[in-house]
Amino acid sequence: MSRKLWGGAFREETGKALAKLSVSIGFDRRLHREDIAGTRAHARTLRAARLLSAGDLRKIDRALDVIEKEIAAGKFPWREADEDVHLNLERRLIEIAGVAGERIHAGRSRNDQVALDLRLHVLGSIGDVDSRVHALAAALVGLASRTTDVIVPAYTHLRRAQPILLAHAVLAHVEPLRRDRERLADARRRTAISPLGSGACAGTTLRLDRTIAARALGLRGITLNSLDAVADRDFVVETEAALALLMAHLSRLSEDLVLWTSDEFAFLQLSDRSTTGSSMMPQKKNPDAFELVRGKSGRVFGHLLAMLTVLKGLPLAYNRDLQEDKEGLFDALDTVRLALDAMREAVEGLRVRSGPVDLGGGLNATDFAEYLVRRGVPFRRAHRQVGELVAVARKRGVELQSLTLAELRAAAPRVGPDVFRALDPVRAVAARDVAGGTAPRRVRSAIREVQRYLKRTRPKRR
Amino acid sequence: MSRKLWGGAFREETGKALAKLSVSIGFDRRLHREDIAGTRAHARTLRAARLLSAGDLRKIDRALDVIEKEIAAGKFPWREADEDVHLNLERRLIEIAGVAGERIHAGRSRNDQVALDLRLHVLGSIGDVDSRVHALAAALVGLASRTTDVIVPAYTHLRRAQPILLAHAVLAHVEPLRRDRERLADARRRTAISPLGSGACAGTTLRLDRTIAARALGLRGITLNSLDAVADRDFVVETEAALALLMAHLSRLSEDLVLWTSDEFAFLQLSDRSTTGSSMMPQKKNPDAFELVRGKSGRVFGHLLAMLTVLKGLPLAYNRDLQEDKEGLFDALDTVRLALDAMREAVEGLRVRSGPVDLGGGLNATDFAEYLVRRGVPFRRAHRQVGELVAVARKRGVELQSLTLAELRAAAPRVGPDVFRALDPVRAVAARDVAGGTAPRRVRSAIREVQRYLKRTRPKRR
Amino acid sequence: MSRKLWGGAFREETGKALAKLSVSIGFDRRLHREDIAGTRAHARTLRAARLLSAGDLRKIDRALDVIEKEIAAGKFPWREADEDVHLNLERRLIEIAGVAGERIHAGRSRNDQVALDLRLHVLGSIGDVDSRVHALAAALVGLASRTTDVIVPAYTHLRRAQPILLAHAVLAHVEPLRRDRERLADARRRTAISPLGSGACAGTTLRLDRTIAARALGLRGITLNSLDAVADRDFVVETEAALALLMAHLSRLSEDLVLWTSDEFAFLQLSDRSTTGSSMMPQKKNPDAFELVRGKSGRVFGHLLAMLTVLKGLPLAYNRDLQEDKEGLFDALDTVRLALDAMREAVEGLRVRSGPVDLGGGLNATDFAEYLVRRGVPFRRAHRQVGELVAVARKRGVELQSLTLAELRAAAPRVGPDVFRALDPVRAVAARDVAGGTAPRRVRSAIREVQRYLKRTRPKRR
Amino acid sequence: MSRKLWGGAFREETGKALAKLSVSIGFDRRLHREDIAGTRAHARTLRAARLLSAGDLRKIDRALDVIEKEIAAGKFPWREADEDVHLNLERRLIEIAGVAGERIHAGRSRNDQVALDLRLHVLGSIGDVDSRVHALAAALVGLASRTTDVIVPAYTHLRRAQPILLAHAVLAHVEPLRRDRERLADARRRTAISPLGSGACAGTTLRLDRTIAARALGLRGITLNSLDAVADRDFVVETEAALALLMAHLSRLSEDLVLWTSDEFAFLQLSDRSTTGSSMMPQKKNPDAFELVRGKSGRVFGHLLAMLTVLKGLPLAYNRDLQEDKEGLFDALDTVRLALDAMREAVEGLRVRSGPVDLGGGLNATDFAEYLVRRGVPFRRAHRQVGELVAVARKRGVELQSLTLAELRAAAPRVGPDVFRALDPVRAVAARDVAGGTAPRRVRSAIREVQRYLKRTRPKRR
Repeated sequence: MSRKLWGGAFREETGKALAKLSVSIGFDRRLHREDIAGTRAHARTLRAARLLSAGDLRKIDRALDVIEKEIAAGKFPWREADEDVHLNLERRLIEIAGVAGERIHAGRSRNDQVALDLRLHVLGSIGDVDSRVHALAAALVGLASRTTDVIVPAYTHLRRAQPILLAHAVLAHVEPLRRDRERLADARRRTAISPLGSGACAGTTLRLDRTIAARALGLRGITLNSLDAVADRDFVVETEAALALLMAHLSRLSEDLVLWTSDEFAFLQLSDRSTTGSSMMPQKKNPDAFELVRGKSGRVFGHLLAMLTVLKGLPLAYNRDLQEDKEGLFDALDTVRLALDAMREAVEGLRVRSGPVDLGGGLNATDFAEYLVRRGVPFRRAHRQVGELVAVARKRGVELQSLTLAELRAAAPRVGPDVFRALDPVRAVAARDVAGGTAPRRVRSAIREVQRYLKRTRPKRR
Repeated sequence: MSRKLWGGAFREETGKALAKLSVSIGFDRRLHREDIAGTRAHARTLRAARLLSAGDLRKIDRALDVIEKEIAAGKFPWREADEDVHLNLERRLIEIAGVAGERIHAGRSRNDQVALDLRLHVLGSIGDVDSRVHALAAALVGLASRTTDVIVPAYTHLRRAQPILLAHAVLAHVEPLRRDRERLADARRRTAISPLGSGACAGTTLRLDRTIAARALGLRGITLNSLDAVADRDFVVETEAALALLMAHLSRLSEDLVLWTSDEFAFLQLSDRSTTGSSMMPQKKNPDAFELVRGKSGRVFGHLLAMLTVLKGLPLAYNRDLQEDKEGLFDALDTVRLALDAMREAVEGLRVRSGPVDLGGGLNATDFAEYLVRRGVPFRRAHRQVGELVAVARKRGVELQSLTLAELRAAAPRVGPDVFRALDPVRAVAARDVAGGTAPRRVRSAIREVQRYLKRTRPKRR
Repeated sequence: MSRKLWGGAFREETGKALAKLSVSIGFDRRLHREDIAGTRAHARTLRAARLLSAGDLRKIDRALDVIEKEIAAGKFPWREADEDVHLNLERRLIEIAGVAGERIHAGRSRNDQVALDLRLHVLGSIGDVDSRVHALAAALVGLASRTTDVIVPAYTHLRRAQPILLAHAVLAHVEPLRRDRERLADARRRTAISPLGSGACAGTTLRLDRTIAARALGLRGITLNSLDAVADRDFVVETEAALALLMAHLSRLSEDLVLWTSDEFAFLQLSDRSTTGSSMMPQKKNPDAFELVRGKSGRVFGHLLAMLTVLKGLPLAYNRDLQEDKEGLFDALDTVRLALDAMREAVEGLRVRSGPVDLGGGLNATDFAEYLVRRGVPFRRAHRQVGELVAVARKRGVELQSLTLAELRAAAPRVGPDVFRALDPVRAVAARDVAGGTAPRRVRSAIREVQRYLKRTRPKRR
Repeated sequence: MSRKLWGGAFREETGKALAKLSVSIGFDRRLHREDIAGTRAHARTLRAARLLSAGDLRKIDRALDVIEKEIAAGKFPWREADEDVHLNLERRLIEIAGVAGERIHAGRSRNDQVALDLRLHVLGSIGDVDSRVHALAAALVGLASRTTDVIVPAYTHLRRAQPILLAHAVLAHVEPLRRDRERLADARRRTAISPLGSGACAGTTLRLDRTIAARALGLRGITLNSLDAVADRDFVVETEAALALLMAHLSRLSEDLVLWTSDEFAFLQLSDRSTTGSSMMPQKKNPDAFELVRGKSGRVFGHLLAMLTVLKGLPLAYNRDLQEDKEGLFDALDTVRLALDAMREAVEGLRVRSGPVDLGGGLNATDFAEYLVRRGVPFRRAHRQVGELVAVARKRGVELQSLTLAELRAAAPRVGPDVFRALDPVRAVAARDVAGGTAPRRVRSAIREVQRYLKRTRPKRR
């Protein structure tokens, strides 16, 4: 019987099916960097408590150096029989460092160890995601800068609403990304806490100063209750929730871009680089990037839900169910990173489509009503008068500006000859000169504001 | 044909089924306070833009006073034909204030109006939830104070792990609540922004100073893009995500309390007030509060997911799908409030069960191993030695402390006669004297720390 | 203290918050018909076991008649203190029938009683939903009949793919509904089983013949294990899963119809009856029915998920968590019914939009490639040749049929002069004469097949 | 530029990020068997339509033989540049079979091809899952057979309810598995339909007899609408819904077994093979199999939700979002298979724990009340009388049977001296002699019925 590191009290081997269900080294080896960092930090705690000699510490550090090189070189002897990244690394540490290695797990359990590793992983990964959100926002601002002179309909209910600058619609998609970055930063702050020293669930009888490891790892503090420390996966849920909402935003941006690049809307043109073809239809250039990203929102929502389900009704402290925290989180992080890259690439490749955009369909009806308000007509009355004129124009198959002044006055007596200026889409756009509005000077100022924001919040490095 | 406020261009009545599907006054009337507050604020903006006269403003304010009274008295003439809270209130305003009322909707759309109302509602409701979380945390600290001398097993994998104070396990459930309150505060911060003045999606051609209404409503600022302002429901998702995680915490607390109050665990006793009986089995006293709360986590998870589904793939700006933002949110908020009240009530009624708690099952094995570590045995070796002794004791049906010193030494040569002190559960608890650990002095200090926290963060009012 | 029907062993009143959390009469009174039917059936079982006299049975039946009338007349004295529909009805039964009423709960528990009631409710409601699915399918076939001569692009990736009949696209949405009906019928079959006689969880010591009640209620059989009988909510999950998928179908139909009725696609026109207007923009006629239905998919997904969450990790047998089975199910059923009605109404109101549909964009490229295949060119080669010609045509801003024969032959040497027939969209549609294809004769035959199916499967009554 | 098989009209390479997002060969290669089978079937269709010569067909079949061997030997040259399993296999087919290979894709698109492949995969996998459900059910019946003489409390609300045979509780978990198998069979029936010949979305102008391939593949029929054929993923959702509910059942079984094997409940004992140890606590033997299975319900729920999210609001026909159908489905299938194996293994290893089970706590109160019913006391009155006696006994810290006849009669005047027989747990179990009840003869008969069922429904092969 191959003896497990925890196997002292056991007399039988783990069953085959359980072994297969239970093994996590296939996915948790991704935590090797964090596990090694955590072990170095824990070693310093043990040293301070005189549970390691200076020589022990040196041996452990050197052995970890060796292990890092082995992993980097693809030569680390990962073993399924050792179940997970923690026991794989501990066994190897013992092989290399001998008795010093056998001392490392004092005052530690896999329960606090994995909680630490995962927190460190989330911290790094959020940084990664954040810099890609920044890059996508920059690409969108770039696109906005290229579209400040394109007037298109704004849509509500996918019906033409009011004339706007395309740049204004593009910038609308930057705002959610700014909120996403705030949420990710909040999640990060709550994640940067060390559970190390909480042991299996009740702490340890060894007198360890838990702040040593926390400081060594650059964390903000230590957890305050040992049971909570090993049972808590809030940081996973919170991160996944932030990622799910981010994916919802990308799915909405994708939808807009699928529409805007269609032949039917025809505002923008995708580059070949951001499309793929059909195995059957020779003419097809499909907006795959946007469709895939939109579709991938599903899996990230799913991972969030899965983690909430795992936690539901789970008694404290650690239960093995919590092993389910990792794969979903890793996939959510990978998916989001890939989606952000693909969106950025596709947005960078967008060109304005030549040819005029149809601005008919009564887009200027609100301008008309607001014109009447400025002439003293109560809005509710103005709305009704214009509504009736819209009906007249529609029946005739024309736009409002094609009606004569007399016709307009029949329904809206306060109309003056200057109304036709108000009905001109270019002027109408310029007139929406309110904070957050689509007037060109407001949009140009919004672009500059976002550019300053991006500069101010540029991530240190990718 | 009964004319809708928006019906100028329409020639047919709304179909019956659509009318039924579409009407929201049944649930959005809950927003009447917020809608009135928003209308008062918008009136001030219009006044500043000279679109209302001083007399108009006065009439509007007085009419709103009347409306408030009508609603409070249950006499407001809610009409399904007016679809939603906004049109109901606007129509009544016009009925009372006349032409002044007809002016109120200038530069406003239901799209920015409902976004504002819902934000105001979330702000108030989060306050409500927060004070109840505070109250539950206080009840838990109270329970912890009553259980500082009860030693019970800590559980991992629902197997006896190590001896702890029951108070320590109770306090473990306070930590998640503290994180919940932080998350709710973060959500609140991002919600306190005014979308008013964004109109249907593109702003307005009327020169409105949007900051006037924001200030009047005590909000932190204004939204920066008019399309985003009406399309954004991040604050709903973020609030629901925070509530879902809170419910996950309550479900875990419930599970622990269902177990702890069972005859099988028997740590605590529920009062009659927190149980109900069976229609068939005369002896039953069921822990309904905990079961119901645990079960209700499902609906809050469901509401979060529903909202993400609504947003998925939705093009900008406003789409009617967004009407689905309210019922789920309202129910999530109601559910959480009710759950928190019921948990608090039940926790307050918990009494320590008389009779000894079984502390057998090898609970002190880790203490034994750590004893060996303190005697210089590397931990991994100590773990194995103790594991073997556990197997010996189990075979014989006794606890570790029943083995003789000689027997212990057979497997663990470094054992001294002082080992039996280390194996005593009371001493073992006291020895877990590490930050976040279960030693009585640590637990007492943790209670004091939480009490200070609760005092510091006491909500102003319920 | 107001004594509960189950309160013999209790000395304190239920706490306020628990009472509020626990009471279900607000929503489960909807089960009164089923509860009464179940009670009549149970009375027959008791009578057969000589636990009721003939006189008792008569008194009970008459009392239930009275109760039915009271409820119909809105005069039944529902009491929150009686918690749920079962205790409300039992108490009233006792008030009216006296001692006979006190005998009714022998061998029965609310656990098997509510399981029965809910099963009966699902059976009836599925019938309801099914007839509405049937009606929507009929409306779609009607629309298909009106659109057999409208050629539009089929879309993949929301890019023009191949020319088809609009009727073909409409019929595509009937197929999922047929599958939905099958799934609902399967769910119904598994629901029609009686749990009555399983008691609280272990059956009863009274010798009851459980098949009597099952037969009286028209059910297929009885449950085989008493614990499973009260713990099982598969029929709820399965029904909700079928409803969730149905809503996914309606959301896809909605999306297609939002696009097809837009100014940009312009295949179909909505009637005023199926749109609503904007409070701000006088010209708007929004496709609210489709948007609301699309959005409401979220809540039904959420209810499914909520129920799975409730069940997750729940030990047998009955737990109070299961009370959460009802509200979500009721809302899912209501939502689906309403959505089906609104879709039907909106589909019935659709008219073909006058004006030609743009069939450009290389829609005939696949026809071209298949033409080459018929001329002996291997498909993969034909695809490449046509692809190159598409690129040439696009560069020039023309369609394939505008290239000269010589130009076509430069890339595709096997082309003959008959190619231009193959490139004509009308002929191309007719040529898709494969089972399930869009050739007019296939589509007409598909319409007839669906009409026969609808006739064959017409629900008995609404 | 490396030319894609679909690249005729393209002038630029796919962008890096899109390529990475888009490539599916990493996971869809799992479909190679199905893709090859589908290609063989399609070749027969083409042959019948004279679009392949007999020689072409032979070459294609032989090339596919070669490809199968290459894959089996791990020597197939999978290429990421070829994106997916379909293009990888088609390119290789062309390399081996030359011009014949270039003919294979006539009348076919990846859209109908992948729909077919996935259907075939689901058919095979459901078979796989079904045989494992069968095996788990068999293991449970085995456990039931070993526990027909163990009396334990049945629990409702995790409170002791009534005495039952442990075998009865074990059998309660077989019933859901039987329903699961029915649902899987229903899903299978609806999956066994061929979409082949539907092309990209509109069928094909080549005259193909679609039934040839369907028959060759052993399917029940062909899809009836070409757009639906490529857009439909109902079979994925339905399968995932069935798997999600199955996992909910396994999570409930897990919960029961975690409890029953705990020291606190102590009905059953896990073998070492089904537990693992702690890295820190030498005594621990954790029920990992059950915890992992319980936790893994989350991911399967998540996959179901993810797929519903993908479909929500997706227009017809094929969209690239649908590529998201596979990974979740594969993982759901893998998870369920693994979970079933691990559950079976763990159940097979369960032994009855020696030592008496505590049957106190008023377990016989219902028996008492039913005794009174048999003596003519109306149940509601009997319930109250026994409730009062329970309160008396509890106050005194004794069981009901410890009260004297006189004491019993004080509250329940109809009690006779034979009441003490009714209060004996062994007799009480035997008295629950109702269909589905826990009387030993009923349980033995239930075991035989399940054994017959298992024999009757034994899957052909694993």
